[in-house]
Amino acid sequence: MILITNDDGIVAPGIKALVDVARKFGEVLVVAPDSPQSGQGHAITLNQPLKLRKVNIFQGIDAYECSGTPVDCVKLAKNVLLKNKKIDLCLSGINHGANASINIIYSGTMSAAMEASIENIDSIGFSLLDYSFDADFEAAKVYIEKIIRYTLENPMQHCKLLNVNIPACPLEEIKGIKICRQGNGTWVEEFQEGTDPRGEKYYWLTGKFVSFEDPANEDNDIWALHHKYVAVVPSGHDLTFYPEIDNLKKLEKF
Amino acid sequence: MILITNDDGIVAPGIKALVDVARKFGEVLVVAPDSPQSGQGHAITLNQPLKLRKVNIFQGIDAYECSGTPVDCVKLAKNVLLKNKKIDLCLSGINHGANASINIIYSGTMSAAMEASIENIDSIGFSLLDYSFDADFEAAKVYIEKIIRYTLENPMQHCKLLNVNIPACPLEEIKGIKICRQGNGTWVEEFQEGTDPRGEKYYWLTGKFVSFEDPANEDNDIWALHHKYVAVVPSGHDLTFYPEIDNLKKLEKF
Repeated sequence: MILITNDDGIVAPGIKALVDVARKFGEVLVVAPDSPQSGQGHAITLNQPLKLRKVNIFQGIDAYECSGTPVDCVKLAKNVLLKNKKIDLCLSGINHGANASINIIYSGTMSAAMEASIENIDSIGFSLLDYSFDADFEAAKVYIEKIIRYTLENPMQHCKLLNVNIPACPLEEIKGIKICRQGNGTWVEEFQEGTDPRGEKYYWLTGKFVSFEDPANEDNDIWALHHKYVAVVPSGHDLTFYPEIDNLKKLEKF
Repeated sequence: MILITNDDGIVAPGIKALVDVARKFGEVLVVAPDSPQSGQGHAITLNQPLKLRKVNIFQGIDAYECSGTPVDCVKLAKNVLLKNKKIDLCLSGINHGANASINIIYSGTMSAAMEASIENIDSIGFSLLDYSFDADFEAAKVYIEKIIRYTLENPMQHCKLLNVNIPACPLEEIKGIKICRQGNGTWVEEFQEGTDPRGEKYYWLTGKFVSFEDPANEDNDIWALHHKYVAVVPSGHDLTFYPEIDNLKKLEKF
């Protein structure tokens, strides 16, 4: 059983492209948000109930739209819809836009995949470096098929989560797959300020991504994507900063 | 300048307790959500504008309520309210309830602190193991004062984020501070199912935390809290699972 979700919403072309590839490998269930949920990170819905509605969007594939976040979708799929069924793989995406570097933290796409990985399910988030609704997913589909096949033939051992970003260019320009670490970068925000119809001031988030990596460092996903490789980052959910544990021991006696 | 936020909302007693301690160390600015935002993780608001409203809640302290998520609060504080001002420390909490182990991923409190740490600001999230609105923060305040003093006297070097969880018991029962790694555990969900007034089925998230740690392992925050220590976990935002990079190289040639 392959579980598929995303954060752009169940009608986004990216999830359709992912279903097209995944169905070649076996039974598929789609549970995805009923509205766009970009930037939802690892949000879950605690203070209100969730709805699930069966929809007929993908020919011959069971699919449900959910009123919650991408992480809610995974929790509902696992606990309500697939109660006693083993999930072999959870796929999230294809995201319309990059989730490389620090974006893994903000991304609903990656958080949904991470949620499944916390439950010990092999999980992969896929993103294409094209934010447009009508992005061309054809080249991406070729690499996604390859990565799904590899993962099913070589189940993950300790790491249960892959963050896969795919350059937006024709297939023949993609140089191959590169295994990377998460590149170091951040968003520089510039809030758009305005006044709403009732005269109240508002701030609307905008910004641009800035890399902190030396362009000579070839080991990270920012470099790989810039050089037209498909970037694959093995990822986890242990946020401990281990090198600091010994330094901090002084605080125990402070 | 000390920036303070939380995820329980600006009127929660926990943030009041944190302001009481932090004001002893210098100028404080509070920017916190105008409604409870527990479980918001690292969500940011992309699809709508944000509002900021100055409120007079903490005597002599500048404070703003924000219509967005905890992470939005930090972004607005840094980019709009404190444009050219150095933030010496970002404090988040005191959260009503635990954020130990895997909870760091779901927690708005910890995500707000992480957001500041991504901006290279020393950041600490504080949580008390008591979910009630009228929790007793007095013992927690003693340890929080100690940890803030230590951090201001010993600025963080590479790690910029501490996850601090405090047992809910009288001061004399707390055994001290323990530096830990993030304990391994998860939430076992049981969705409450019901029917809404319009006859539609709904699912409401509930569940209980389950530890995967051997109780003999003394190096993690689950053990520390169970044994009435204040648990301090140095944390980061690089999610790369480094040991897997070499194993995965086969995929480059697949």
